[in-house]
Amino acid sequence: MNYPQTIRNLIECYKKLPGIGEKTAERLALATLNIDQEIIHLFSNSLLDSKTKIRRCVRCNHLSENEECDICLDKSRIQNVICVVDDPKNVITFEKIGSYRGKYHVLNGLISPLDGIGPEDIHLNSLLHRIEKENISEIILALKPSIEGETTNLYISKVLSGMPVKITKIAHGIPMGADMDYVDLMTLETALDNRTELT
Amino acid sequence: MNYPQTIRNLIECYKKLPGIGEKTAERLALATLNIDQEIIHLFSNSLLDSKTKIRRCVRCNHLSENEECDICLDKSRIQNVICVVDDPKNVITFEKIGSYRGKYHVLNGLISPLDGIGPEDIHLNSLLHRIEKENISEIILALKPSIEGETTNLYISKVLSGMPVKITKIAHGIPMGADMDYVDLMTLETALDNRTELT
Repeated sequence: MNYPQTIRNLIECYKKLPGIGEKTAERLALATLNIDQEIIHLFSNSLLDSKTKIRRCVRCNHLSENEECDICLDKSRIQNVICVVDDPKNVITFEKIGSYRGKYHVLNGLISPLDGIGPEDIHLNSLLHRIEKENISEIILALKPSIEGETTNLYISKVLSGMPVKITKIAHGIPMGADMDYVDLMTLETALDNRTELT
Repeated sequence: MNYPQTIRNLIECYKKLPGIGEKTAERLALATLNIDQEIIHLFSNSLLDSKTKIRRCVRCNHLSENEECDICLDKSRIQNVICVVDDPKNVITFEKIGSYRGKYHVLNGLISPLDGIGPEDIHLNSLLHRIEKENISEIILALKPSIEGETTNLYISKVLSGMPVKITKIAHGIPMGADMDYVDLMTLETALDNRTELT
């Protein structure tokens, strides 16, 4: 004896999501029964749409419902600056700040020799292609501050050396509002190395 | 600029689930994009089925895909003992133990005057009706050990007083394997009050 088949199916599906185990999936499946009909239909359709409508922008590799994403199509943005990020989520985060007016390029991964991920496994070639074709004057590297992120930064700057494009990296240091007592040593060291002169 | 509409919809739907906020919903929606087509179809259909196929057993009020649930239809079970629970989830938990062979009745709520939930708001009348009609010899109260649970226990035992049915309550006390140092005082008091004689 167990739950009816539909609920068992729901539990199995919820379990496919990251961080959701048996117990949580069970709780979500039962909670699903109390959700309004309207939302359930939207949910059901959006799931199907996620497979059919969502694609990657042919230019920058960001999530899009069209061939090119809204950002690439926006002619009012600065056309010759590209911010390079690892994940589509980072694009959204930058957009939330609202002050960046250039374009993006989503690598969708970082170089990680230990995991067997080389430069050809991430969207790097398309970036190099864009730099030439779109007459890019600056690329801003905004990758994760990790070994993989640094490896990727290094690789990109090496490949681009000699090309007429400025390569910058977003600042790493003490986060705003942080308690100095709790900042980890590596961050502190980076912050010290990257100190700027007050003029 | 933001996520494509489909992803925004997914985020909104995930947010309707209990314990899932904006950040988690965003993470789940993006993770959904990486789930296999097959699972997405099952997920989408199960959501629709949850509204159309899942109903309550007309007898015991447990979740069911038929008019009567599998447990009520099972003639091999003890027919004159009913275990009264608050929630369908509790039925599944009891079934996991595997040793209980009687039937169930799901109240779907507990009496809670503070929240304006009276005896008529939970499935109590149908229980009283069953006790008479199905010739029930024992009802086992297995409600939550809370004020609402105790109130409901009290109400049921009062209503049934004078009827030829044995009313029992599952034991409350120290959980198996618990560290005595961390047992709360109310549980300890209950355990002391409910001590049994070793013979």
